[in-house]
Amino acid sequence: MASGGGVDEVRNKQVILKDYVSGFPKESDMYLNASGTIKLKVPESSNAILVKNMYLSCDPYMRGRMKQPIPGNETYIEPFKPGSPIVGNGVAKVLDSGHPDFKKGDLIWGVTGWEEYSLITATQTLFKIHHTDVPLSYYTGLLGMPGITAYAGFYEICSPKKGEHVFISAASGAVGQLVGQLAKLLGCYVVGSAGSKEKVDLLKNKFGFNEAFNYKEEPDLHEALKRYFPEGIDIYFENVGGKMLDAVLLNVRAHGRIAVCGMISQYNLEHPEGVHNLMTVIWKRVRIEGFVCDEYCHLFPKFLELVLPYIKEGKITYVEDVAEGLESAPAALIGLFTGRNVGKQVVVVARE
Amino acid sequence: MASGGGVDEVRNKQVILKDYVSGFPKESDMYLNASGTIKLKVPESSNAILVKNMYLSCDPYMRGRMKQPIPGNETYIEPFKPGSPIVGNGVAKVLDSGHPDFKKGDLIWGVTGWEEYSLITATQTLFKIHHTDVPLSYYTGLLGMPGITAYAGFYEICSPKKGEHVFISAASGAVGQLVGQLAKLLGCYVVGSAGSKEKVDLLKNKFGFNEAFNYKEEPDLHEALKRYFPEGIDIYFENVGGKMLDAVLLNVRAHGRIAVCGMISQYNLEHPEGVHNLMTVIWKRVRIEGFVCDEYCHLFPKFLELVLPYIKEGKITYVEDVAEGLESAPAALIGLFTGRNVGKQVVVVARE
Repeated sequence: MASGGGVDEVRNKQVILKDYVSGFPKESDMYLNASGTIKLKVPESSNAILVKNMYLSCDPYMRGRMKQPIPGNETYIEPFKPGSPIVGNGVAKVLDSGHPDFKKGDLIWGVTGWEEYSLITATQTLFKIHHTDVPLSYYTGLLGMPGITAYAGFYEICSPKKGEHVFISAASGAVGQLVGQLAKLLGCYVVGSAGSKEKVDLLKNKFGFNEAFNYKEEPDLHEALKRYFPEGIDIYFENVGGKMLDAVLLNVRAHGRIAVCGMISQYNLEHPEGVHNLMTVIWKRVRIEGFVCDEYCHLFPKFLELVLPYIKEGKITYVEDVAEGLESAPAALIGLFTGRNVGKQVVVVARE
Repeated sequence: MASGGGVDEVRNKQVILKDYVSGFPKESDMYLNASGTIKLKVPESSNAILVKNMYLSCDPYMRGRMKQPIPGNETYIEPFKPGSPIVGNGVAKVLDSGHPDFKKGDLIWGVTGWEEYSLITATQTLFKIHHTDVPLSYYTGLLGMPGITAYAGFYEICSPKKGEHVFISAASGAVGQLVGQLAKLLGCYVVGSAGSKEKVDLLKNKFGFNEAFNYKEEPDLHEALKRYFPEGIDIYFENVGGKMLDAVLLNVRAHGRIAVCGMISQYNLEHPEGVHNLMTVIWKRVRIEGFVCDEYCHLFPKFLELVLPYIKEGKITYVEDVAEGLESAPAALIGLFTGRNVGKQVVVVARE
């Protein structure tokens, strides 16, 4: 039974956002508060749950939440609160529950805090974890929000057909690696771009992309894409924006589709770069469509049904970059924006 | 019976493209050749038709056809041929026919030459005119290619719903004036932009737009749109591109749709302007979609069925800017790019 009375408090380390961030974020925009405490019980007559956080997810969209909101021009998600812990997706274990749907010992994934323990009131956003014969950390990536993002973005937005030519930027990232594998399983020709030789090797040798290239070594992205897509691009899964989008627009095929998942190259710029080749959308009758995974959560059961067997058969694989300890979380998050991470960036707070 | 033998030749004035054009086109990029002649009979055993041109259509997309083609980066339509007459849509009367579907006296609209008489071999692109109780020149505009463009762009690309907030740029042009009236008839809130007081007056007083503004008098397009769309834009019918698109992206509502019909502000620039606010397509889950009317010609009968009664009931009206004589055609075409025309730009070659 939920009761807060007479329970000892334990330490609860937290990663706190110092203040709103403009420009390139730094580790010092956050700090570790090691002096906080928490009672490991939900307050009486609350229907919240109290969880022990295990794995935290570092995602590029979190950069947007560090920004000072501009009145009248809010984004789809509210900003972080300076002085409070960062919030994001994570995997956690229920220690106490005032909610009929959750009980002690349940594993969940969803929105939690960057801290050792969290009291979660918005339980409607959580998913219970039923399949534990896969790494639990996958619920921050392959089987979590990035997974649904890849699935919904590819199947719902890209309208893919067998044999089509698919290009994915930031292709070794949390979302890209799955999009590429889904596209390959459908019978598409798949090319990815990434920012290092190691990532390019992963794309070609681990994820089975047809081709991959290091965008940092390409003096002319337009020429690079022409080389890999002499007949043009049917589908572009957009994760980076800016110059890459401009180059894709010059190489897109008639009736091409561009699913805009993210534009990480633009998130830290004071003024976003200009995209110059949009006239192509007329000539080539292109559809550019933005989406956010929050609107596709209802597809989660269908998504699991598709992906779990593939994982067990070894037909879908996943690479994670695991940072140890809450202390490492700020650097792990910042690392996304320099491309330091190889694969999905996870922070381990506790393994059980 | 079609026969070229023993038939006298008549004079056939033509408007010739001198050479490929870069930058802003000038009247002197074309010239009138008054010395040509033509036989008013189709050659023996040809299935072409010989027509007398009556009304010629000046359309912004024609600028793209004046450009030197870039190998490997062709647009959806082939360039004009320097030294040959301009080609475009027009209304014409059949004088002789080698084709079973056409006979002497038929009125047609479709692709013809900028000349007094044309021998048309690509007869599959022509439409026969069955309704002559409307001005024949309408088949270059309201009932022609711009009409289908407005109809397909609005109904097929914008997915409009009653009560939605619709913004149209170049709104008094050949396409925009019809889009606005279709949107009003559906029960939308409709605002248009144009480049002069006269055009703004037309939008508000003749076409029944809820509001209209002169973009040239707005120091900040973002603020102007905020003023007319305090709750945001659901549908943007894009005819101009560049800065206007950037301002719309800052004012678009969640799940907004942008139908990209044209980007006339960009056609004469050596380097198109950059569009900076594309990140909004993610946050607001926006769809941007380009289209060309050629892919919607099958809708023409359905379109006529909708629009003809509205015209007869006075519920849809149309404004044309009529230039007299083939000699005036080059200036009329160039005038599109300075916004000189008020309404659909037509050139009369002959009234019967």
